Amino acid sequence: MKSIQNVAVMGAGVIGSGWIARLLINGINVNVFEHSSATLANIDKVVDNAQRTQEQLLDIDLPERGSLTVSESIAHACTDVGLIIEAIPEVLEAKQELYSQIELSADIDTVIASSTSGILPSDLQSRMHHKERLIVAHPFNPVYLLPLVEIVGGNETSKSVIDKSSEFFSSIGMFPLIINKEIPAFIADRLLESVWREALWLINDDVATTQQIDDSIRYGFGLRWAQMGLFETYRLAGGEAGMRHFISQFGPCLEWPWTHLVDVPEFNEDLVNKIASQSDEQSSMYSFDELVRKRDDNLVNFISSLKDNSWGAGSTLKEYEKRLIEKAKTVSFEDREFSKTIQTYSTTVPQKWADYNGHMNESRYLDCFSWATDSFMQIIGADGEYIDNGNSYFTLETHIRHLDEALVGDRVNVTTQLIEGVGKKLHIFHRLFHDDGRLLATGEHMLLHVNLKLRGSSNPSELIITRVSTIYQAHKVLPLPEGLGRAIGDSFK
Amino acid sequence: MKSIQNVAVMGAGVIGSGWIARLLINGINVNVFEHSSATLANIDKVVDNAQRTQEQLLDIDLPERGSLTVSESIAHACTDVGLIIEAIPEVLEAKQELYSQIELSADIDTVIASSTSGILPSDLQSRMHHKERLIVAHPFNPVYLLPLVEIVGGNETSKSVIDKSSEFFSSIGMFPLIINKEIPAFIADRLLESVWREALWLINDDVATTQQIDDSIRYGFGLRWAQMGLFETYRLAGGEAGMRHFISQFGPCLEWPWTHLVDVPEFNEDLVNKIASQSDEQSSMYSFDELVRKRDDNLVNFISSLKDNSWGAGSTLKEYEKRLIEKAKTVSFEDREFSKTIQTYSTTVPQKWADYNGHMNESRYLDCFSWATDSFMQIIGADGEYIDNGNSYFTLETHIRHLDEALVGDRVNVTTQLIEGVGKKLHIFHRLFHDDGRLLATGEHMLLHVNLKLRGSSNPSELIITRVSTIYQAHKVLPLPEGLGRAIGDSFK
Repeated sequence: MKSIQNVAVMGAGVIGSGWIARLLINGINVNVFEHSSATLANIDKVVDNAQRTQEQLLDIDLPERGSLTVSESIAHACTDVGLIIEAIPEVLEAKQELYSQIELSADIDTVIASSTSGILPSDLQSRMHHKERLIVAHPFNPVYLLPLVEIVGGNETSKSVIDKSSEFFSSIGMFPLIINKEIPAFIADRLLESVWREALWLINDDVATTQQIDDSIRYGFGLRWAQMGLFETYRLAGGEAGMRHFISQFGPCLEWPWTHLVDVPEFNEDLVNKIASQSDEQSSMYSFDELVRKRDDNLVNFISSLKDNSWGAGSTLKEYEKRLIEKAKTVSFEDREFSKTIQTYSTTVPQKWADYNGHMNESRYLDCFSWATDSFMQIIGADGEYIDNGNSYFTLETHIRHLDEALVGDRVNVTTQLIEGVGKKLHIFHRLFHDDGRLLATGEHMLLHVNLKLRGSSNPSELIITRVSTIYQAHKVLPLPEGLGRAIGDSFK
Repeated sequence: MKSIQNVAVMGAGVIGSGWIARLLINGINVNVFEHSSATLANIDKVVDNAQRTQEQLLDIDLPERGSLTVSESIAHACTDVGLIIEAIPEVLEAKQELYSQIELSADIDTVIASSTSGILPSDLQSRMHHKERLIVAHPFNPVYLLPLVEIVGGNETSKSVIDKSSEFFSSIGMFPLIINKEIPAFIADRLLESVWREALWLINDDVATTQQIDDSIRYGFGLRWAQMGLFETYRLAGGEAGMRHFISQFGPCLEWPWTHLVDVPEFNEDLVNKIASQSDEQSSMYSFDELVRKRDDNLVNFISSLKDNSWGAGSTLKEYEKRLIEKAKTVSFEDREFSKTIQTYSTTVPQKWADYNGHMNESRYLDCFSWATDSFMQIIGADGEYIDNGNSYFTLETHIRHLDEALVGDRVNVTTQLIEGVGKKLHIFHRLFHDDGRLLATGEHMLLHVNLKLRGSSNPSELIITRVSTIYQAHKVLPLPEGLGRAIGDSFK
């Protein structure tokens, strides 16, 4: 499979712009076809949101951003692209008409992926010439952050199209859920629609407001579903006896009249007004942008913490990061150049690092230095495999000097200078810079090589000794850092 | 309202034991009435889970644990308690019979709260003598972590009973959602049941497996629902145009045949087997305890991060913490005793603080010292109000020495010694101890008083100068800490 470097996105609404953002920050060039200039004007903001949040999630830099071209015609948009994503309104005939126009200009093997949330792929492909290349790839808002994409083929879709599309979506950090049996609304939206209908009844009958319904979700089962979904959660509700026990308890209640879902509420103006005004009362104290920001900050935190626990969406993020690391031009030790200090870390200061003083909290400086030390360890060969084999470096001492402030959203980077590295000991000096050149802090660290099993000091491997020595030979001619070897309070003496 | 210090819990299954755990760790004494000795034996484990997780969530220590008494009779359990929580199986007649026995021994104004997930409170209270004291208080598993409790009264329930119960549930860290209109299954379980029914059809018809359904939730909308629920999420899906626009887009689809919910799947042995075996395939690589641990660790992380963002379940946690702080015996500065170093922080090392070396990551030591510094700031009067008025201390320098290791689950504490405090400068020395007495690390810090508006150094308030001086007079006779004023690498010289 040739790698997809250019993608067309047809339609740039909430879903289309989310696709565009995810693609661009993954270094993929996008042709967008969209009539509305207001809609086009909104794309930049969505891309910025995507960049900001993914930078917070990833411990490696994103690739260079792809370029965005606004296409004046379908033909232009669909020429020389490896994938065409359709994200126009949910009208079958409109989609079919669009595909027939696409087929006039696109290569015959270019995959067409519809973002429809409910229409059957067999219906979508029914009037196409090359039906085998049509799939549904149904993503979830915000597309640039939520990993799920439901992949569904129609009767005529070829398996290889499903496979190569899934591989592509994985490569841009998504979780492709391949659904083998076509059904209207697929899986997630069927579940969502059943909740939506029930919720409408609750509002219609004045049992609950939109706020109460949202609270009943986010203070309770919503927190469970962000990690486990329905069945794994219920497995636990069954206690040690598990799923069977849960069903035997819950099963009989299925006969009780607990849902209204035998019919659909009439969607009259009264009900629409009620929902809209309750929603205003609940949420209109925040602007749209503020609410998006809060949602995204929370999503970043959830997914980050799932990453720490290697669970669910956090595992997808880890896989994605691994792919990015593999793709990034890995510089071998031999090709590195040590005549200057080493660039070991860069990041954007996330919201959660701020403290009550409104700037990056003191403990986060050590986070940055800790990441920089990890990166230095990778370079000298004290990597994951080395640690798995029972060897590592422990930090014995740390001296941090705070020289300037960093604010949320600032880009910062760390350089590392090797002061001394003989035998078991490593003496390193980090400098944390703002991207504008200001020196924000320095971190001086003394580390000791240890045997993890004996929990005592030991000598590093020959490879590490050699590499540390190579760096030391280069760094020993650098000027010693200002502040080196300083004790607390020296600056006041 | 008299404060509730003793509570009876009838039934100690998954829900009952969750209630017991939440009550005990909040310092409330519990009488439990439960026939099964196996079920009783399980309580300790649940209480340990509750303690472990709440300690990670709270920045203040929990009160002293309440005592648990196993009652041999209903009469014994319900004597001299302020609240009776019923958590027996969902059989109306059994519950009614239990209440009639409770009424023989309980005070006439003791509130009876049923944990039922669906039965109407009017039916529950119909045969009671003192109907006004019956409410539904429907919690969610795990009761010791999820804040939601649905509060529903029946036709005869008094408003004051609803109010005072809600106040009590708030005081133990919960989010009482008061539902004004009785309806079977209330709110959350109606939503859950509609999803459950749809999910059963998807499995029955071989469209999806339990794993696929769970994945369709936890990689997508589940992450949204942990923070915003259904309507606020959809408000954003409508883009800037909001809820009305969303409904106009989504409304028509309601007419489409997207749910199966016009009937209930037949719950035959085949379907039960299918679900149980799919669930085993999905989850049986983890034991029940492992899965509970993973769920709870994820919940702790979600709720912690929501706390950082003051959102949803995190706001409930903040309120709860504020209540605990108010309740905790606040020691005035004048009553404090400074002849020794000051106890400024204690915590249990959470999972997320571990690094690849399997112990507490170096940057978390500075987290502990940072909390300890905050606590010292509170004591000298540099509190929230002081900062809001534009004054604070910034850390200039930090020197950490790592002397021993801390592992996940270890209890650790910090003591603080004031080395010098004259004018704008503060020189403090923290020691991080394991609860077994081992000194794990020291943190030496130089701080400077600043004016937050001018972003420059300034003099502290008179109050702070006086308090710092008082502490200094007491601390200057203490032996200077070993390692004080040490520069990096001194220990190697």
